[in-house]
Amino acid sequence: MTMIQESVEQQQHWKQLVFERFLEILHAPYGDFEAIGNLAHVINEAESLQQAIAFLSTSPQAKYAIQNRLPLGAVDLQQLQELPQETLGDRYSDHMLRNHLKPIVTQPVESDLNYVTTHMAEIHDIWHVMIDADVDMPGEMKLHAFTAAQFRYARFSFAMLAKNLMKAAVDDLELAEEWMNAMTEGWVMGKRAQTLFGVQWQTLWQVPVKELRAEWNILA
Amino acid sequence: MTMIQESVEQQQHWKQLVFERFLEILHAPYGDFEAIGNLAHVINEAESLQQAIAFLSTSPQAKYAIQNRLPLGAVDLQQLQELPQETLGDRYSDHMLRNHLKPIVTQPVESDLNYVTTHMAEIHDIWHVMIDADVDMPGEMKLHAFTAAQFRYARFSFAMLAKNLMKAAVDDLELAEEWMNAMTEGWVMGKRAQTLFGVQWQTLWQVPVKELRAEWNILA
Repeated sequence: MTMIQESVEQQQHWKQLVFERFLEILHAPYGDFEAIGNLAHVINEAESLQQAIAFLSTSPQAKYAIQNRLPLGAVDLQQLQELPQETLGDRYSDHMLRNHLKPIVTQPVESDLNYVTTHMAEIHDIWHVMIDADVDMPGEMKLHAFTAAQFRYARFSFAMLAKNLMKAAVDDLELAEEWMNAMTEGWVMGKRAQTLFGVQWQTLWQVPVKELRAEWNILA
Repeated sequence: MTMIQESVEQQQHWKQLVFERFLEILHAPYGDFEAIGNLAHVINEAESLQQAIAFLSTSPQAKYAIQNRLPLGAVDLQQLQELPQETLGDRYSDHMLRNHLKPIVTQPVESDLNYVTTHMAEIHDIWHVMIDADVDMPGEMKLHAFTAAQFRYARFSFAMLAKNLMKAAVDDLELAEEWMNAMTEGWVMGKRAQTLFGVQWQTLWQVPVKELRAEWNILA
Protein backbone atom coordinates (compact mmCIF):
# COMPACT_ATOMS: atom_id res chain seq x y z
CA MET A 1 0.00 0.00 0.00
CA THR A 2 1.42 3.41 -0.92
CA MET A 3 1.57 6.25 1.60
CA ILE A 4 -1.19 8.10 -0.28
CA GLN A 5 -3.49 5.07 -0.19
CA GLU A 6 -2.77 4.66 3.51
CA SER A 7 -3.58 8.29 4.19
CA VAL A 8 -6.84 8.07 2.20
CA GLU A 9 -7.81 4.94 4.13
CA GLN A 10 -7.02 6.60 7.45
CA GLN A 11 -9.17 9.58 6.52
CA GLN A 12 -12.06 7.32 5.48
CA HIS A 13 -11.75 5.48 8.78
CA TRP A 14 -11.74 8.78 10.70
CA LYS A 15 -14.84 10.03 8.83
CA GLN A 16 -16.62 6.76 9.53
CA LEU A 17 -15.85 7.14 13.24
CA VAL A 18 -17.00 10.78 13.30
CA PHE A 19 -20.31 9.89 11.63
CA GLU A 20 -20.82 7.02 14.11
CA ARG A 21 -20.29 9.37 17.04
CA PHE A 22 -22.55 11.93 15.38
CA LEU A 23 -25.32 9.34 15.07
CA GLU A 24 -24.79 8.37 18.71
CA ILE A 25 -25.23 11.98 19.82
CA LEU A 26 -28.30 12.41 17.58
CA HIS A 27 -29.93 9.51 19.44
CA ALA A 28 -28.77 10.70 22.89
CA PRO A 29 -30.79 13.11 25.05
CA TYR A 30 -29.58 16.73 25.24
CA GLY A 31 -26.62 17.24 27.58
CA ASP A 32 -25.42 13.62 27.39
CA PHE A 33 -21.84 14.42 28.34
CA GLU A 34 -20.55 10.97 27.43
CA ALA A 35 -21.83 11.25 23.84
CA ILE A 36 -20.57 14.86 23.61
CA GLY A 37 -17.15 13.80 24.92
CA ASN A 38 -16.99 10.87 22.48
CA LEU A 39 -17.68 13.15 19.53
CA ALA A 40 -15.20 15.81 20.71
CA HIS A 41 -12.52 13.18 21.25
CA VAL A 42 -12.78 11.89 17.66
CA ILE A 43 -13.51 15.08 15.72
CA ASN A 44 -10.88 17.34 17.33
CA GLU A 45 -7.87 15.99 15.45
CA ALA A 46 -4.50 17.69 15.70
CA GLU A 47 -4.42 19.30 12.25
CA SER A 48 -7.54 21.44 12.64
CA LEU A 49 -6.58 22.38 16.21
CA GLN A 50 -3.23 23.58 14.84
CA GLN A 51 -5.09 25.63 12.22
CA ALA A 52 -7.26 27.13 14.96
CA ILE A 53 -4.17 27.96 17.02
CA ALA A 54 -2.55 29.61 13.99
CA PHE A 55 -5.72 31.63 13.41
CA LEU A 56 -5.99 32.65 17.09
CA SER A 57 -2.31 33.57 17.15
CA THR A 58 -2.92 36.50 14.80
CA SER A 59 -4.11 38.13 18.05
CA PRO A 60 -1.09 39.05 20.22
CA GLN A 61 -3.17 38.47 23.37
CA ALA A 62 -4.11 34.92 22.35
CA LYS A 63 -0.58 34.21 21.10
CA TYR A 64 0.94 35.29 24.43
CA ALA A 65 -1.53 33.16 26.41
CA ILE A 66 -0.78 30.11 24.26
CA GLN A 67 3.00 30.59 24.36
CA ASN A 68 2.93 30.91 28.13
CA ARG A 69 0.04 28.47 28.65
CA LEU A 70 -1.62 30.88 31.05
CA PRO A 71 -4.31 29.18 33.15
CA LEU A 72 -7.38 30.81 34.68
CA GLY A 73 -6.22 29.57 38.07
CA ALA A 74 -8.30 28.87 41.17
CA VAL A 75 -11.63 30.67 41.47
CA ASP A 76 -13.42 31.30 44.77
CA LEU A 77 -17.10 31.83 43.94
CA GLN A 78 -18.01 32.96 47.47
CA GLN A 79 -15.32 35.64 47.34
CA LEU A 80 -16.55 36.82 43.91
CA GLN A 81 -20.04 37.15 45.38
CA GLU A 82 -18.69 40.02 47.53
CA LEU A 83 -17.92 42.15 44.46
CA PRO A 84 -20.27 44.97 43.38
CA GLN A 85 -23.27 44.08 41.22
CA GLU A 86 -22.77 43.84 37.47
CA THR A 87 -19.02 43.26 37.75
CA LEU A 88 -17.69 40.17 35.99
CA GLY A 89 -17.03 38.43 39.31
CA ASP A 90 -20.57 39.13 40.51
CA ARG A 91 -22.21 38.00 37.28
CA TYR A 92 -19.97 34.95 36.85
CA SER A 93 -20.44 33.69 40.41
CA ASP A 94 -24.22 34.25 40.09
CA HIS A 95 -24.22 32.21 36.87
CA MET A 96 -22.23 29.37 38.43
CA LEU A 97 -24.20 29.20 41.69
CA ARG A 98 -27.61 29.54 39.98
CA ASN A 99 -26.78 26.66 37.64
CA HIS A 100 -25.11 24.53 40.34
CA LEU A 101 -21.79 24.61 38.46
CA LYS A 102 -18.29 24.40 39.93
CA PRO A 103 -15.14 25.97 38.47
CA ILE A 104 -12.96 23.34 36.78
CA VAL A 105 -9.62 22.64 38.46
CA THR A 106 -7.16 22.02 35.63
CA GLN A 107 -3.96 19.99 35.58
CA PRO A 108 -0.67 21.20 34.07
CA VAL A 109 -0.70 20.75 30.28
CA GLU A 110 1.96 19.29 28.01
CA SER A 111 1.29 20.84 24.61
CA ASP A 112 -0.25 23.89 22.96
CA LEU A 113 -3.16 21.76 21.70
CA ASN A 114 -3.77 20.42 25.17
CA TYR A 115 -3.56 23.95 26.61
CA VAL A 116 -6.14 25.37 24.20
CA THR A 117 -8.77 22.66 24.84
CA THR A 118 -8.12 22.67 28.60
CA HIS A 119 -8.26 26.46 28.86
CA MET A 120 -11.49 26.57 26.82
CA ALA A 121 -13.07 24.22 29.36
CA GLU A 122 -11.88 26.48 32.22
CA ILE A 123 -13.34 29.66 30.77
CA HIS A 124 -16.44 28.17 29.09
CA ASP A 125 -18.81 29.73 31.63
CA ILE A 126 -17.08 33.10 31.58
CA TRP A 127 -17.84 33.20 27.85
CA HIS A 128 -21.46 32.31 28.67
CA VAL A 129 -21.60 35.46 30.84
CA MET A 130 -19.66 37.66 28.42
CA ILE A 131 -21.92 36.92 25.44
CA ASP A 132 -25.08 36.76 27.56
CA ALA A 133 -25.88 33.13 26.74
CA ASP A 134 -27.94 31.08 29.18
CA VAL A 135 -27.23 27.38 29.75
CA ASP A 136 -30.40 26.37 27.87
CA MET A 137 -30.36 25.16 24.26
CA PRO A 138 -30.56 28.60 22.57
CA GLY A 139 -27.72 29.73 24.86
CA GLU A 140 -25.59 26.74 23.92
CA MET A 141 -26.32 27.32 20.20
CA LYS A 142 -25.27 30.95 20.59
CA LEU A 143 -22.04 29.96 22.34
CA HIS A 144 -21.16 27.21 19.83
CA ALA A 145 -21.68 29.69 16.97
CA PHE A 146 -19.68 32.40 18.77
CA THR A 147 -16.86 29.90 19.42
CA ALA A 148 -16.94 28.71 15.79
CA ALA A 149 -16.62 32.31 14.60
CA GLN A 150 -13.72 32.98 16.97
CA PHE A 151 -11.81 29.76 16.26
CA ARG A 152 -12.80 29.32 12.57
CA TYR A 153 -11.22 25.84 12.34
CA ALA A 154 -13.63 24.49 14.92
CA ARG A 155 -14.83 21.10 13.77
CA PHE A 156 -16.48 20.33 17.09
CA SER A 157 -18.48 23.58 17.27
CA PHE A 158 -19.78 23.19 13.70
CA ALA A 159 -20.69 19.56 14.42
CA MET A 160 -22.58 20.55 17.58
CA LEU A 161 -24.51 23.21 15.62
CA ALA A 162 -25.32 20.57 12.98
CA LYS A 163 -26.41 18.10 15.65
CA ASN A 164 -28.72 20.59 17.35
CA LEU A 165 -30.24 21.75 14.05
CA MET A 166 -30.93 18.14 13.10
CA LYS A 167 -32.48 17.40 16.49
CA ALA A 168 -34.65 20.51 16.11
CA ALA A 169 -35.70 19.33 12.63
CA VAL A 170 -36.77 15.95 13.98
CA ASP A 171 -37.70 16.36 17.66
CA ASP A 172 -38.29 20.04 18.37
CA LEU A 173 -39.56 21.76 15.26
CA GLU A 174 -41.40 24.35 17.39
CA LEU A 175 -38.03 25.47 18.79
CA ALA A 176 -36.10 25.59 15.52
CA GLU A 177 -36.75 29.31 14.99
CA GLU A 178 -35.41 30.30 18.40
CA TRP A 179 -32.34 28.11 17.93
CA MET A 180 -31.64 29.54 14.47
CA ASN A 181 -31.95 33.06 15.90
CA ALA A 182 -29.50 32.19 18.69
CA MET A 183 -27.04 30.62 16.27
CA THR A 184 -27.24 33.63 13.94
CA GLU A 185 -26.69 36.03 16.82
CA GLY A 186 -23.70 34.08 18.17
CA TRP A 187 -22.08 33.86 14.74
CA VAL A 188 -22.41 37.56 13.94
CA MET A 189 -21.29 38.48 17.48
CA GLY A 190 -18.27 36.17 17.31
CA LYS A 191 -17.15 37.60 13.98
CA ARG A 192 -17.51 41.23 15.07
CA ALA A 193 -15.85 40.79 18.46
CA GLN A 194 -12.15 41.02 19.19
CA THR A 195 -10.43 37.71 19.91
CA LEU A 196 -11.57 36.64 23.36
CA PHE A 197 -9.13 33.77 23.78
CA GLY A 198 -6.29 34.64 26.13
CA VAL A 199 -8.06 37.39 28.09
CA GLN A 200 -6.74 37.27 31.66
CA TRP A 201 -10.12 37.07 33.35
CA GLN A 202 -8.64 36.60 36.82
CA THR A 203 -7.44 40.24 36.65
CA LEU A 204 -10.85 41.55 35.59
CA TRP A 205 -13.36 40.25 38.15
CA GLN A 206 -14.03 43.72 39.52
CA VAL A 207 -14.72 45.32 36.09
CA PRO A 208 -18.36 45.77 35.04
CA VAL A 209 -19.37 43.22 32.34
CA LYS A 210 -20.70 46.11 30.26
CA GLU A 211 -17.25 47.69 30.07
CA LEU A 212 -15.64 44.37 29.17
CA ARG A 213 -18.15 43.82 26.37
CA ALA A 214 -17.41 47.29 25.00
CA GLU A 215 -13.65 46.65 25.22
CA TRP A 216 -13.87 43.42 23.19
CA ASN A 217 -16.61 44.70 20.88
CA ILE A 218 -19.26 42.20 21.97
CA LEU A 219 -22.48 43.73 20.66
CA ALA A 220 -26.02 42.41 21.17
CA MET B 1 -50.71 -2.55 22.40
CA THR B 2 -52.43 0.73 23.30
CA MET B 3 -52.84 3.54 20.76
CA ILE B 4 -50.32 5.65 22.64
CA GLN B 5 -47.73 2.86 22.55
CA GLU B 6 -48.39 2.36 18.86
CA SER B 7 -47.94 6.06 18.18
CA VAL B 8 -44.68 6.18 20.16
CA GLU B 9 -43.40 3.15 18.24
CA GLN B 10 -44.34 4.71 14.92
CA GLN B 11 -42.51 7.88 15.85
CA GLN B 12 -39.40 5.95 16.90
CA HIS B 13 -39.54 4.07 13.62
CA TRP B 14 -39.87 7.36 11.70
CA LYS B 15 -36.92 8.92 13.55
CA GLN B 16 -34.83 5.86 12.87
CA LEU B 17 -35.61 6.13 9.15
CA VAL B 18 -34.84 9.87 9.08
CA PHE B 19 -31.47 9.32 10.76
CA GLU B 20 -30.66 6.53 8.29
CA ARG B 21 -31.43 8.82 5.36
CA PHE B 22 -29.44 11.58 7.01
CA LEU B 23 -26.42 9.28 7.33
CA GLU B 24 -26.86 8.26 3.69
CA ILE B 25 -26.78 11.90 2.57
CA LEU B 26 -23.76 12.64 4.81
CA HIS B 27 -21.85 9.93 2.94
CA ALA B 28 -23.13 10.98 -0.51
CA PRO B 29 -21.36 13.57 -2.68
CA TYR B 30 -22.93 17.06 -2.87
CA GLY B 31 -25.91 17.26 -5.21
CA ASP B 32 -26.75 13.53 -5.02
CA PHE B 33 -30.40 13.96 -5.95
CA GLU B 34 -31.34 10.41 -5.04
CA ALA B 35 -30.08 10.83 -1.46
CA ILE B 36 -31.70 14.28 -1.23
CA GLY B 37 -35.01 12.89 -2.52
CA ASN B 38 -34.86 9.95 -0.10
CA LEU B 39 -34.41 12.30 2.86
CA ALA B 40 -37.14 14.68 1.68
CA HIS B 41 -39.54 11.79 1.15
CA VAL B 42 -39.16 10.55 4.74
CA ILE B 43 -38.74 13.80 6.68
CA ASN B 44 -41.58 15.77 5.05
CA GLU B 45 -44.45 14.13 6.95
CA ALA B 46 -47.97 15.50 6.68
CA GLU B 47 -48.22 17.10 10.13
CA SER B 48 -45.33 19.53 9.74
CA LEU B 49 -46.37 20.37 6.17
CA GLN B 50 -49.83 21.21 7.54
CA GLN B 51 -48.18 23.46 10.15
CA ALA B 52 -46.17 25.16 7.40
CA ILE B 53 -49.34 25.69 5.35
CA ALA B 54 -51.12 27.16 8.38
CA PHE B 55 -48.15 29.48 8.96
CA LEU B 56 -47.99 30.53 5.29
CA SER B 57 -51.75 31.08 5.22
CA THR B 58 -51.45 34.05 7.58
CA SER B 59 -50.42 35.78 4.32
CA PRO B 60 -53.53 36.40 2.14
CA GLN B 61 -51.41 36.03 -1.00
CA ALA B 62 -50.11 32.59 0.02
CA LYS B 63 -53.54 31.54 1.27
CA TYR B 64 -55.15 32.45 -2.05
CA ALA B 65 -52.51 30.58 -4.05
CA ILE B 66 -52.94 27.47 -1.88
CA GLN B 67 -56.75 27.56 -1.98
CA ASN B 68 -56.70 27.89 -5.76
CA ARG B 69 -53.59 25.75 -6.27
CA LEU B 70 -52.17 28.32 -8.67
CA PRO B 71 -49.33 26.89 -10.78
CA LEU B 72 -46.45 28.81 -12.31
CA GLY B 73 -47.47 27.47 -15.71
CA ALA B 74 -45.34 26.98 -18.79
CA VAL B 75 -42.21 29.11 -19.10
CA ASP B 76 -40.50 29.93 -22.40
CA LEU B 77 -36.90 30.80 -21.60
CA GLN B 78 -36.11 32.02 -25.12
CA GLN B 79 -39.05 34.43 -24.98
CA LEU B 80 -37.94 35.71 -21.56
CA GLN B 81 -34.49 36.40 -23.06
CA GLU B 82 -36.14 39.11 -25.19
CA LEU B 83 -37.11 41.16 -22.11
CA PRO B 84 -35.04 44.20 -21.04
CA GLN B 85 -31.97 43.62 -18.89
CA GLU B 86 -32.44 43.34 -15.13
CA THR B 87 -36.12 42.37 -15.42
CA LEU B 88 -37.14 39.17 -13.64
CA GLY B 89 -37.62 37.37 -16.97
CA ASP B 90 -34.18 38.41 -18.16
CA ARG B 91 -32.41 37.46 -14.93
CA TYR B 92 -34.34 34.20 -14.50
CA SER B 93 -33.74 32.99 -18.05
CA ASP B 94 -30.05 33.91 -17.75
CA HIS B 95 -29.85 31.91 -14.53
CA MET B 96 -31.53 28.88 -16.10
CA LEU B 97 -29.56 28.92 -19.35
CA ARG B 98 -26.20 29.60 -17.64
CA ASN B 99 -26.73 26.65 -15.28
CA HIS B 100 -28.19 24.35 -17.97
CA LEU B 101 -31.50 24.10 -16.10
CA LYS B 102 -34.94 23.54 -17.58
CA PRO B 103 -38.24 24.79 -16.11
CA ILE B 104 -40.13 21.96 -14.41
CA VAL B 105 -43.38 20.93 -16.08
CA THR B 106 -45.77 20.07 -13.25
CA GLN B 107 -48.74 17.71 -13.19
CA PRO B 108 -52.14 18.61 -11.68
CA VAL B 109 -52.07 18.15 -7.90
CA GLU B 110 -54.58 16.43 -5.62
CA SER B 111 -54.05 18.05 -2.23
CA ASP B 112 -52.82 21.23 -0.58
CA LEU B 113 -49.72 19.40 0.67
CA ASN B 114 -48.98 18.14 -2.79
CA TYR B 115 -49.55 21.62 -4.22
CA VAL B 116 -47.12 23.30 -1.83
CA THR B 117 -44.24 20.88 -2.47
CA THR B 118 -44.89 20.81 -6.24
CA HIS B 119 -45.12 24.59 -6.49
CA MET B 120 -41.91 25.03 -4.46
CA ALA B 121 -40.11 22.84 -7.00
CA GLU B 122 -41.54 24.98 -9.85
CA ILE B 123 -40.39 28.28 -8.39
CA HIS B 124 -37.15 27.11 -6.73
CA ASP B 125 -34.96 28.88 -9.28
CA ILE B 126 -37.02 32.08 -9.22
CA TRP B 127 -36.26 32.25 -5.49
CA HIS B 128 -32.57 31.72 -6.33
CA VAL B 129 -32.75 34.87 -8.49
CA MET B 130 -34.91 36.87 -6.07
CA ILE B 131 -32.59 36.36 -3.09
CA ASP B 132 -29.42 36.52 -5.22
CA ALA B 133 -28.26 33.00 -4.39
CA ASP B 134 -26.01 31.15 -6.82
CA VAL B 135 -26.34 27.39 -7.39
CA ASP B 136 -23.08 26.72 -5.52
CA MET B 137 -23.01 25.53 -1.90
CA PRO B 138 -23.15 28.97 -0.22
CA GLY B 139 -26.09 29.79 -2.50
CA GLU B 140 -27.91 26.61 -1.55
CA MET B 141 -27.24 27.25 2.16
CA LYS B 142 -28.65 30.76 1.77
CA LEU B 143 -31.76 29.46 0.02
CA HIS B 144 -32.35 26.64 2.54
CA ALA B 145 -32.09 29.16 5.39
CA PHE B 146 -34.35 31.65 3.59
CA THR B 147 -36.91 28.88 2.96
CA ALA B 148 -36.70 27.70 6.58
CA ALA B 149 -37.39 31.26 7.76
CA GLN B 150 -40.33 31.63 5.39
CA PHE B 151 -41.93 28.22 6.11
CA ARG B 152 -40.90 27.91 9.79
CA TYR B 153 -42.09 24.29 10.03
CA ALA B 154 -39.57 23.19 7.46
CA ARG B 155 -38.04 19.92 8.63
CA PHE B 156 -36.32 19.32 5.30
CA SER B 157 -34.66 22.76 5.12
CA PHE B 158 -33.33 22.51 8.68
CA ALA B 159 -32.06 18.99 7.97
CA MET B 160 -30.27 20.15 4.81
CA LEU B 161 -28.63 22.99 6.75
CA ALA B 162 -27.56 20.46 9.41
CA LYS B 163 -26.23 18.10 6.75
CA ASN B 164 -24.18 20.80 5.04
CA LEU B 165 -22.77 22.12 8.33
CA MET B 166 -21.72 18.60 9.29
CA LYS B 167 -20.11 18.02 5.89
CA ALA B 168 -18.26 21.33 6.27
CA ALA B 169 -17.10 20.27 9.76
CA VAL B 170 -15.70 17.01 8.41
CA ASP B 171 -14.81 17.50 4.73
CA ASP B 172 -14.58 21.23 4.03
CA LEU B 173 -13.49 23.08 7.12
CA GLU B 174 -11.93 25.84 4.99
CA LEU B 175 -15.39 26.61 3.58
CA ALA B 176 -17.33 26.54 6.85
CA GLU B 177 -17.06 30.30 7.39
CA GLU B 178 -18.49 31.14 3.97
CA TRP B 179 -21.34 28.65 4.45
CA MET B 180 -22.17 30.01 7.89
CA ASN B 181 -22.21 33.55 6.46
CA ALA B 182 -24.56 32.43 3.68
CA MET B 183 -26.87 30.62 6.11
CA THR B 184 -26.95 33.63 8.44
CA GLU B 185 -27.74 35.96 5.54
CA GLY B 186 -30.53 33.74 4.20
CA TRP B 187 -32.11 33.34 7.62
CA VAL B 188 -32.15 37.07 8.41
CA MET B 189 -33.37 37.87 4.88
CA GLY B 190 -36.15 35.28 5.05
CA LYS B 191 -37.41 36.58 8.38
CA ARG B 192 -37.40 40.23 7.29
CA ALA B 193 -38.99 39.62 3.89
CA GLN B 194 -42.70 39.47 3.17
CA THR B 195 -44.09 36.01 2.45
CA LEU B 196 -42.84 35.06 -0.99
CA PHE B 197 -44.98 31.94 -1.41
CA GLY B 198 -47.92 32.53 -3.76
CA VAL B 199 -46.42 35.43 -5.72
CA GLN B 200 -47.72 35.19 -9.29
CA TRP B 201 -44.34 35.33 -10.98
CA GLN B 202 -45.77 34.71 -14.44
CA THR B 203 -47.33 38.22 -14.28
CA LEU B 204 -44.06 39.86 -13.22
CA TRP B 205 -41.46 38.82 -15.79
CA GLN B 206 -41.13 42.35 -17.17
CA VAL B 207 -40.61 44.00 -13.75
CA PRO B 208 -37.01 44.81 -12.68
CA VAL B 209 -35.76 42.39 -10.00
CA LYS B 210 -34.70 45.40 -7.93
CA GLU B 211 -38.31 46.61 -7.73
CA LEU B 212 -39.60 43.14 -6.83
CA ARG B 213 -37.01 42.86 -4.03
CA ALA B 214 -38.11 46.23 -2.66
CA GLU B 215 -41.78 45.23 -2.86
CA TRP B 216 -41.23 42.03 -0.83
CA ASN B 217 -38.62 43.59 1.46
CA ILE B 218 -35.76 41.37 0.39
CA LEU B 219 -32.71 43.21 1.70
CA ALA B 220 -29.06 42.25 1.20
